[in-house]
Amino acid sequence: MIIKNSLDEMKKREVSLKVIKSIIATSGRNSLYDLTGLSGGFLAKQEELDILETYIGPAIFEEKLQVLGCEHLGGEKVFAVNRTSSGILATILAIVKEDSYVVHFLPEFPAHPSIPRSCGIVGANYLEFDDIGEFIANFPKYARNVSLLVITGSTMDHKILMEEDFKTAINLAKNENIPVFVDDASGARLRTAIFSQKRATDLGADLVVTSTDKLMMGPRGGLMAGKKDLIDEIKTKAHQFGLEAQPPSVLAMVKGLEEYNEDDLKKSIVKKDELMDLLANDFNSFEKTPTGIMVSEDNLKNEIIFSLKKSDSNFNETNLDKFSNKDFCFLWAMLLLKEEHIVTIPAVSMPGASATVRFDLAANDADRIEVNNLCDKIKNSFNNLLNVIVDEKIAKKILYKNNI
Amino acid sequence: MIIKNSLDEMKKREVSLKVIKSIIATSGRNSLYDLTGLSGGFLAKQEELDILETYIGPAIFEEKLQVLGCEHLGGEKVFAVNRTSSGILATILAIVKEDSYVVHFLPEFPAHPSIPRSCGIVGANYLEFDDIGEFIANFPKYARNVSLLVITGSTMDHKILMEEDFKTAINLAKNENIPVFVDDASGARLRTAIFSQKRATDLGADLVVTSTDKLMMGPRGGLMAGKKDLIDEIKTKAHQFGLEAQPPSVLAMVKGLEEYNEDDLKKSIVKKDELMDLLANDFNSFEKTPTGIMVSEDNLKNEIIFSLKKSDSNFNETNLDKFSNKDFCFLWAMLLLKEEHIVTIPAVSMPGASATVRFDLAANDADRIEVNNLCDKIKNSFNNLLNVIVDEKIAKKILYKNNI
Repeated sequence: MIIKNSLDEMKKREVSLKVIKSIIATSGRNSLYDLTGLSGGFLAKQEELDILETYIGPAIFEEKLQVLGCEHLGGEKVFAVNRTSSGILATILAIVKEDSYVVHFLPEFPAHPSIPRSCGIVGANYLEFDDIGEFIANFPKYARNVSLLVITGSTMDHKILMEEDFKTAINLAKNENIPVFVDDASGARLRTAIFSQKRATDLGADLVVTSTDKLMMGPRGGLMAGKKDLIDEIKTKAHQFGLEAQPPSVLAMVKGLEEYNEDDLKKSIVKKDELMDLLANDFNSFEKTPTGIMVSEDNLKNEIIFSLKKSDSNFNETNLDKFSNKDFCFLWAMLLLKEEHIVTIPAVSMPGASATVRFDLAANDADRIEVNNLCDKIKNSFNNLLNVIVDEKIAKKILYKNNI
Repeated sequence: MIIKNSLDEMKKREVSLKVIKSIIATSGRNSLYDLTGLSGGFLAKQEELDILETYIGPAIFEEKLQVLGCEHLGGEKVFAVNRTSSGILATILAIVKEDSYVVHFLPEFPAHPSIPRSCGIVGANYLEFDDIGEFIANFPKYARNVSLLVITGSTMDHKILMEEDFKTAINLAKNENIPVFVDDASGARLRTAIFSQKRATDLGADLVVTSTDKLMMGPRGGLMAGKKDLIDEIKTKAHQFGLEAQPPSVLAMVKGLEEYNEDDLKKSIVKKDELMDLLANDFNSFEKTPTGIMVSEDNLKNEIIFSLKKSDSNFNETNLDKFSNKDFCFLWAMLLLKEEHIVTIPAVSMPGASATVRFDLAANDADRIEVNNLCDKIKNSFNNLLNVIVDEKIAKKILYKNNI
């Protein structure tokens, strides 16, 4: 295993950021393709920036955000947080009591780590279910001591929850007067625009948070919405610990919401199908996401073994034992960045995020690259990955050195 | 008491933000004088903004911040946080163990609430001293169980620590291998530019945090610096919970640091002395701060009683019992805003902040108002305050209604 802990993940991220900088310095911004689907924009105009001062900016943009945010997410009031993770922390600090239970229902494991981590901070017990049957069977046992039901609308890998399961879970909590908080990071747009589901608040959730840089041109940050009383409590807690979004981000959220259009998201589906068809000849384990394609940690390892055995039938899998499945993802993401100038999440992710390699065709930069060209780049870098993983030293150099 | 809790403080803040917005809409930005000393700027140019995308922006600006930040604060590495409070939380989450002691040495009580609150979150014991003698006498008793010494370089009211006391406290901790973290929110500039003290890291601190919107034209946010290993640990923890500064703030920090000039800060001292002389005829309890003047909660009450007794020698102090000392500050700040268009901290502060009314002459907007004119505005609004506090209903209307 090369990437062993959060600190290694930060190191890897720092290397990626330096590489991105030198690519831009050498070849310009347009030589880079950010397909993370997380690259929000900062669409402000100069005159808007001039009023971006600490106590003035919020007064101007806060009111617009209330209107646009409530349109987008429903609810009585919105509140902008520094990141979705800080919104989750603020919510759990405000609502969850020590020794109580937080139950998390999600489409597929693993959960975003910020939820169990925040429970750990307040000393709450954390339970998670990714199967509605198990959730229904177990929830009543804990219900009396549950202080919050968290529902994830769509995972980091864009797997979404069925609307029926959503409703079932919410109703079970409602019957016990347990508040429901939906982590709809990308789901707030994915579920509604692509799967025609209802907004979380319309399904009965008391609170929802979405990531304003996921599938929309907003800044990295979180936007919460829901019942006024709860939002006010969370806001108070957030301000105590500095978890709220700052004025430049609030402005960029307003611009991102103004710019958001469901049709742009829908177009990405057509491109995704084309790319999937092209890759099908060479790869077995690429999967579609709602707006792109992806390879999970386990599937990438299988793909690697399959390819290596194709060229050498005596290939021994134990040769790969020095690498974890996550390492393969990090390595491939770094090769995609250094050699093909394609940014994917594992190259730049925060510690604990999913290492799935995902190419998001709803990303802004996807407009600048043809599907054929992208397919070639993916194939090239995968072949280079096969060459790299014969040697741990080379692999470490790829991950930890700034050379392009 | 009118403002009873954090929620009331948030309500008051929201009213102020709406009032600010309508003043700007009606009379333009230049009709407003933000003398909080906290109104940072957002000095970015359009071409810089165009690259402000989630994973691209940081790569570009992060490197500049390292250079400028280390120049400003010393240390081996810097790390930008969403707010000073979120940097304090990240530090305590990363370094402080449950049941251990955090000792806080500060120039004057009360401590910034984010420090004891963050200790509460990790279940650490919190001790505070504002007297070096007591600190020296007590510190050794706890030293074996102390996981962090926090030193505040300058309080919210701009009272600073003597450099000798600073050194003494640091050395006591160093002898026991206890890490030292300096909360130098405004002190990083106040102590160095005005009082010719050394930077916290040069005095031996392992970590320091400063507020980039205090006495410099940066954004609301915090900049940490210190030993690389510690910064890396804090950074990892911060990313897990979304406590780090986002790219627009990082860019604005770079611009603020580029713009920072000690001489501008020094000029404010001359203006402060002029204003103090002019006010001396009417008021007894205004105090000088390093860059302006202020009235503390207790002093404002004394000033009010003094003035009311001057006009009515039979005035009974119990008439004021429905107001807390903080209420007087909040009310005056709101009158200053609504009637004189002067923004002071109590009008817009986050819950738990000091309610001292402070006029900061190092604030950017102070350049646009003459000392004579400012003096008249202060006198007018104080006289109106005397009229308002005869009636609780009127006072509530002033605090909670958006009318100008």
